[in-house]
Formats: sequence, structure tokens, C-alpha cells
Amino acid sequence: MSPYRFEKVTIYGVGLMGGALGMALQQYGIAREVWGLGRNQARLLDAINAGVITHTSENRRTAVEDAEIIVVCLPIRLIPDMVLALAALASPGAVITDVGSTKHEIMAHLQRDMRKTEVHFVGSHPMCGSEKTGFEAATADLYVGATCAITPMPSTPETAITRLQGFWESVGARVIQLGPRQHDRLVARTSHLPHLLATALCHNTEMEMEAELHDLMVGPGFRDTTRVAQADENIWADIFLSNQDYLLDVLGDLQVCLESAHKILASGNRKLVTDWLAQGRSIRARYNPKPSGEKD
Amino acid sequence: MSPYRFEKVTIYGVGLMGGALGMALQQYGIAREVWGLGRNQARLLDAINAGVITHTSENRRTAVEDAEIIVVCLPIRLIPDMVLALAALASPGAVITDVGSTKHEIMAHLQRDMRKTEVHFVGSHPMCGSEKTGFEAATADLYVGATCAITPMPSTPETAITRLQGFWESVGARVIQLGPRQHDRLVARTSHLPHLLATALCHNTEMEMEAELHDLMVGPGFRDTTRVAQADENIWADIFLSNQDYLLDVLGDLQVCLESAHKILASGNRKLVTDWLAQGRSIRARYNPKPSGEKD
Repeated sequence: MSPYRFEKVTIYGVGLMGGALGMALQQYGIAREVWGLGRNQARLLDAINAGVITHTSENRRTAVEDAEIIVVCLPIRLIPDMVLALAALASPGAVITDVGSTKHEIMAHLQRDMRKTEVHFVGSHPMCGSEKTGFEAATADLYVGATCAITPMPSTPETAITRLQGFWESVGARVIQLGPRQHDRLVARTSHLPHLLATALCHNTEMEMEAELHDLMVGPGFRDTTRVAQADENIWADIFLSNQDYLLDVLGDLQVCLESAHKILASGNRKLVTDWLAQGRSIRARYNPKPSGEKD
Repeated sequence: MSPYRFEKVTIYGVGLMGGALGMALQQYGIAREVWGLGRNQARLLDAINAGVITHTSENRRTAVEDAEIIVVCLPIRLIPDMVLALAALASPGAVITDVGSTKHEIMAHLQRDMRKTEVHFVGSHPMCGSEKTGFEAATADLYVGATCAITPMPSTPETAITRLQGFWESVGARVIQLGPRQHDRLVARTSHLPHLLATALCHNTEMEMEAELHDLMVGPGFRDTTRVAQADENIWADIFLSNQDYLLDVLGDLQVCLESAHKILASGNRKLVTDWLAQGRSIRARYNPKPSGEKD
């Protein structure tokens, strides 16, 4: 019996997320072969040399056949077509997944268009990563302690769900199964809204006389609060637009929260201000740090 | 000639900020003696054992006399009275400063009440620190690369300003001289507003069905964006209230930014969304990381 849980895993898109996955699969002894695919063959050879993947091929069929798990690590609007293209080449029983930040649009697209019943697509959203890009920024522990939401189709067989769950757990993630809309509604609030706010805070520093002084007058609080605003705008425009309705909803909620904060601050009542801050701190305490080295 | 820039520095309040200062003054060979004062003598003895300060005394006069620089590291509403108390004991020529996050209230209070003309108070606000507390969390490089705003009084002699500037530069800070109101207006936007938003984002997660799922559905983006909401609510209530008018102003600006974001997102226009995110990213790029180890 092979000591590996998987004989062959294929990753399309060997950047930060795909690269970290390839490293984890190898370093934790989970997959015997980790095949990388992408548009840039030279980069894929670099990834082999860097120990991020074990194989690549200019022939997509070679890279995909017999893979038990295929992970598409592309910007969300490229995901459905790539899944369909790889599904056409995948061996029976293969589970295809992605790492996209929204799930409803992708799932709806694939539920409509995916006809090959012996290959299964289950959406994934591992909640890790950073504003950095490229496998050079990847580390094998990226997924450790991160939540990974998975979104099966109604038709997905239990064996495929179990296999994918075991896959993500083997690289350290905590798996939670959600409906695609439920997923998108939750991450609108916990991920997309913070991103929108970080960007708004940056814009807001321009609404000031002597804006040049801000370059000096920022500290670690501002830098942390706005860190995510450094991410690629094309990737995030797609995320925002694929989750437009829920994001508008939670932005509306936040605007209500801020009006309430405005009133509390304008009251000048120290107890009200302290209580509001204390409640925020106690809510924040629930969001414990992930167990790996993430700063918190 | 002494190899030290200062023979004696006294720190009132040996927590994160005061502790890091004491460590830096010793490790960088800047002060021969670093005296620590505070309410808890046992903690001060621990601080000596931990190498954070060199001396303490139950006699406040002993700890303060002949000190060239006296730094009050207390929550802002305790600062003015403590400065007045220490000024009464300080030797002629001493420069007293603080590390409080707002400056106008403190400066106005002391300009009114400080009568001892041979001792000089100049406000300071080193823009570093974290939500952590206690000298155990302190490191000698806390001030490296951080901006330190100093706010002299109109009557402050140039020699006192120069001495304080040299003091902060010796522990690695970049010093900028500002008027107290100008300082408070700038930090309302770059520090207090991010704090308010981080707290509002935490409150906002409660405005949801299935709030318990949020505990799983947070990633590093949420954690970084809300990190500062973990800070002590009493300290921050004082900061907010001592900067109430400017903070209300910049919160109003942000609400305008968010209305604009709401419109852009609701338009569904990909170019508008991408441009808005790209502008935010380009503004964020100006706020370069501090040169020390801070994550960015």
C-alpha cells in the first residue's frame, strides 16, 4: 500500500495559493506527484526547481490524467471555463476544485454547463493567502489552521466530498461545508467588506489638507488596517462584482454601525464610548488567531 | 567625556511603550541610567531584573532629580497631572515629555498650569506600539523607523526641542514637529479613524443570522483589519474623546467615501470598481513599511 494519501494531484496556476499547496502536499508526504499547469512553462520549471511541484507538462492531458484531485488556482472569472476544459481531460472519479473567494457564480455556471458525470466539481475557498503573489511568497504552512469552505453540488456523491475534505484537512485546514449562497453571504461580511473598508481608508487620507504629512503620520494601526488594500485590483474587482448584492447589504449594515458610532462619539459620554469599544473588543476576541505563525 | 548622550533618563510608567524605551536606551548605549517609576514597585523590580530599566526608587524625588529627560508613559487623561507633579521635583533644565496619542488637550492644560519655567514640557507622540500591554511585550526596536511627532509650547527654548529631538532619534524614530491641533487633526485620520472602523467591523459581524459561523469564516484579512480593536477600551475612549471634533470630521469624510464606494459597486461597472481599488492601492503604496521587522 502506498504511503501517500494521493498518488497524483494537479494544480492549475502555481502562484501563492497553488504554490503553497504544492509545497504542503510534498512536505507533509500527502501526494506522490504534484503536477503544475499554467500559461508560463518557464515559471513552472522554476517551480519544479524550487521544490514547489514535482512535474509539469506542455501537454495538458498528460498533466491531468489519473489525477485524483485537480485544483484550479486562478482568478474567479477564469475558473468555470478552466474547470470545464480540465474536466474534459480528467479521468473518471477525479474531483476538481478551485480556491476562488466567491462560490455562487462559479457553482451556478458549472451546474449548468458541466455534463461529464464521472468527474466531480466541488467548490473550495481556503481562507488564507495575502496581498502577495507568486510561489516565491508561498510557505507550506499557509493552510494550517485556515478555514476551508467547500460547496458541493446537489448531485455530488458523498465519496467526492469526503475525498476533498480529507485533502484540505491533510494540509492543515478546518473544513466547513456550506451552500454557495450561504458562503458568499458570510464572506461578504468577514472578507469583502474589510477589503472595501481598507481601500476606503486609503482614499480617505486624500481628503485632507497637507495630505503629504500623512506619509509620516501613519503607524502600525493604519498599516495593518489597510494591508489588504495592497492586493491586485483586478482580482478583487471580480470578487466584489461576483458578490455584489451581499456586499452592498453588508456595506449598508456597516453604514448603520458607523452612524451609531457617530452618535455615541458626538454624545461625549465616556461610558457609552467605552462600552462600544469594549463590545468590539469582546467580539474580536472570538476570532482567535489561526494556530500557525500568523501575527495576531 | 561620557560615552553616553544622557546620564539619566526617567520613565514614569514601564509598560509596552516605556519598557521598549528603557530597553532601547540601554541596548543602544544612549543613557547611563534609566530610572523607572510607577504605582507598582514589584513590577518595577521585575523590570530591573528583565533589563528594562536600571534603577527604581520608592522616593519619586530620587528617581527624578538630575534626570535630563523625563518621559511620562501613562493613559492620556493621567498625563497632565503627572507632568505637573514630576515638574515640581525635576532639576532645572529637565525636559519632560509624554507618549500620548493626542496632544491638544494635554498641551492646553499644561500651558495653563505649568508655572516652573526652568523645566520644559514638550509633547511627544511616537507612532508605534500595539494592542499588547506590559514591558514583557516590549522590544528595543519598537521605535525604529516610527514617526515621532513632537509638539513644543510657544515658550519652549530651542535647546529643549533639540534635546528631545535627539532623544527620539537616538532610539530610531523619525521626528516631525507639529502644532498640537495640527497633530490631532492628522492622527484623527491616520490612527483614530482606523481604530473606530476596526471596532465597527467587529460590531458589524453581529448583524447577521448564523453569527456563530463567523467564528470560522474569518481569515487573515479580517484579523489584520480589526487587530487594533483588541486594544484597551479605557485608553481608547480617552483618545477618542480628547479628539472628538476632528474624529467626527474624518468619520464624516469616510462616510462620504463609503457612499461613493456604494454607488460604484451598485453600478456594476467593472472599470469603475477596478479603478477605485487601484487608486486605493496606489495611495497605500505611499505608506511604506517602517524599516524594522514590522509586517507589511
